[in-house]
Amino acid sequence: MRPSEFDLIGRYFAPLSAGFPGAVNLQDDLATVSPAAGYELAVTVDAMVAGVHFLPADPPDLIARKLLRVNLSDLAASGARPLCYLLAISLDSSLDEDWVRIFADGLAHDQKQFGISLAGGDTTATPGPLTLSLTAIGEIPSGRAIRRSGAVVGDDIWLSGTVGDAALALTLMEHDGTAVLENDYPRLLARYRLPEPRTLLGPALIGVATAMADVSDGLLADLGHICDGSGTGARIIYANLPLSEAATALFERTPAKKEAYVQRVLTGGDDYELLFTAAPAASGEIERSGMQCGTRVTRIGQVEEAPGVRAVASDGTEIAVTAGGWRHF
Amino acid sequence: MRPSEFDLIGRYFAPLSAGFPGAVNLQDDLATVSPAAGYELAVTVDAMVAGVHFLPADPPDLIARKLLRVNLSDLAASGARPLCYLLAISLDSSLDEDWVRIFADGLAHDQKQFGISLAGGDTTATPGPLTLSLTAIGEIPSGRAIRRSGAVVGDDIWLSGTVGDAALALTLMEHDGTAVLENDYPRLLARYRLPEPRTLLGPALIGVATAMADVSDGLLADLGHICDGSGTGARIIYANLPLSEAATALFERTPAKKEAYVQRVLTGGDDYELLFTAAPAASGEIERSGMQCGTRVTRIGQVEEAPGVRAVASDGTEIAVTAGGWRHF
Repeated sequence: MRPSEFDLIGRYFAPLSAGFPGAVNLQDDLATVSPAAGYELAVTVDAMVAGVHFLPADPPDLIARKLLRVNLSDLAASGARPLCYLLAISLDSSLDEDWVRIFADGLAHDQKQFGISLAGGDTTATPGPLTLSLTAIGEIPSGRAIRRSGAVVGDDIWLSGTVGDAALALTLMEHDGTAVLENDYPRLLARYRLPEPRTLLGPALIGVATAMADVSDGLLADLGHICDGSGTGARIIYANLPLSEAATALFERTPAKKEAYVQRVLTGGDDYELLFTAAPAASGEIERSGMQCGTRVTRIGQVEEAPGVRAVASDGTEIAVTAGGWRHF
Repeated sequence: MRPSEFDLIGRYFAPLSAGFPGAVNLQDDLATVSPAAGYELAVTVDAMVAGVHFLPADPPDLIARKLLRVNLSDLAASGARPLCYLLAISLDSSLDEDWVRIFADGLAHDQKQFGISLAGGDTTATPGPLTLSLTAIGEIPSGRAIRRSGAVVGDDIWLSGTVGDAALALTLMEHDGTAVLENDYPRLLARYRLPEPRTLLGPALIGVATAMADVSDGLLADLGHICDGSGTGARIIYANLPLSEAATALFERTPAKKEAYVQRVLTGGDDYELLFTAAPAASGEIERSGMQCGTRVTRIGQVEEAPGVRAVASDGTEIAVTAGGWRHF
């Protein structure tokens, strides 16, 4: 028998709101939030469903942290710095108090890491799979949010971190099972389970990046969103893509699958890296920002006039893409 | 075959954001929101699950409007006026494009009525029941939010509208089916299906009400939340409770069930009326506010020092309560 909604909130969720006075200890159904002077609030929501976005048996603390991080990534992709969040959780009857405790522990861990607090929420039961939705609230200098629509022909295209790790992990998991992944490619698995939202780099790119998105649907798909919004096209140079050591090792060990893996790198999602455009003159500043934030940044292509998104090989030939990118639907 | 997430957003949800520039037509994963000068933002989230909070076959436009209204009621209960909302929707595979269209029509209807816009959201698939979560964002004069914790011994207890209608509807539905309700008590059914958030009265009570909540868990339970937060007790006079004409008719036609119905009035939830406390000297102002907002307001009891919440009959004897109020869990 799981404790009541009120008991769960009091025991596990109210402590997560301690750092946020506007949450009044979750005793009301409402929180108040104020941006700093000269700032406005940025809001985003993402839902995750067991069996769709994660496996029901995944560790609850990792589920919690991934949920929080994909939303922090959305904030970062506009240049917002995180403030607080609201959580709606529909618990299926198989989840006991221990599950809730570990889930809340995961939130507590990441709250410290990212300097945010729980501000409010709703807890319900569901006869279906565990369903979570998180609303992240950040702040951003008024009128300075980086949108998808600002890319200009001639801009460079940049990417933070490395690309393809999460999608390669998922592919290995589907074909070879989790054990192979855990033993041979733990870094790929970690990248899939626990994205690293670029909460420092994003705000540092305000006034520098002309357009930005995070890679959630897939590199080509998210670049397509930027191009659609900006009325441009884009070309990326496959050889310039930043691959992780783990991904490089995978490519080397299984050359027969290279073509399939290239497709995963181009179209797979869930990396939650920042994909952004900027004038060529901004290169030095972007590299400095990357160094200051401890985040690798790599120039991977150019914004072009011709519509569409192209990936080209070192010899200039276009790489045919067989899938349009992961869609969470 | 249902259209893709992107097509659904473009066709049905993006038009709902037209009135809100910070939503940039839902093209980004993020919206920006600013409170007016001297105001702060108020945020609240409520989730609804098919089979728990509504029936899967309920009309989609009514599901949408109830979802929106229960959140607007939370804003009103703190004195916030509504600005915009975010919507996370996990669609089960039985729901087709028509369902989504009618759902969005419901939102469009209430957006006009309450002067708000969609600002962002997330659409996913679910192998389980339709699951919705809505984050409502309002604004409130900075530092003036009405909390549950401000009730003072000697305050009057007030209630907007009428009480018990939604719970009586649910009881009739469970015992006699929806047809009886539709034929004989359409007003009760309407009150259950479509609450009337008190979005004008709530903000008018800033500086007047000492504590406020909306009746979602049940009259006694929500009054208990206020008393817990305020460190007080409370007494309500049953004979003073404002019953609707439909509820009165039900009581008269089925006298044998009166005792059970009295329990439902005291403990049933889902009325989404404002329950608030105020100094006796504020009575005149509260009655004027009620008139100006077109909302009935009724004094139903007093805040007392002795802990606990009591309902008393006309002869002063306490009414024994057999259930603690509806819990959405």
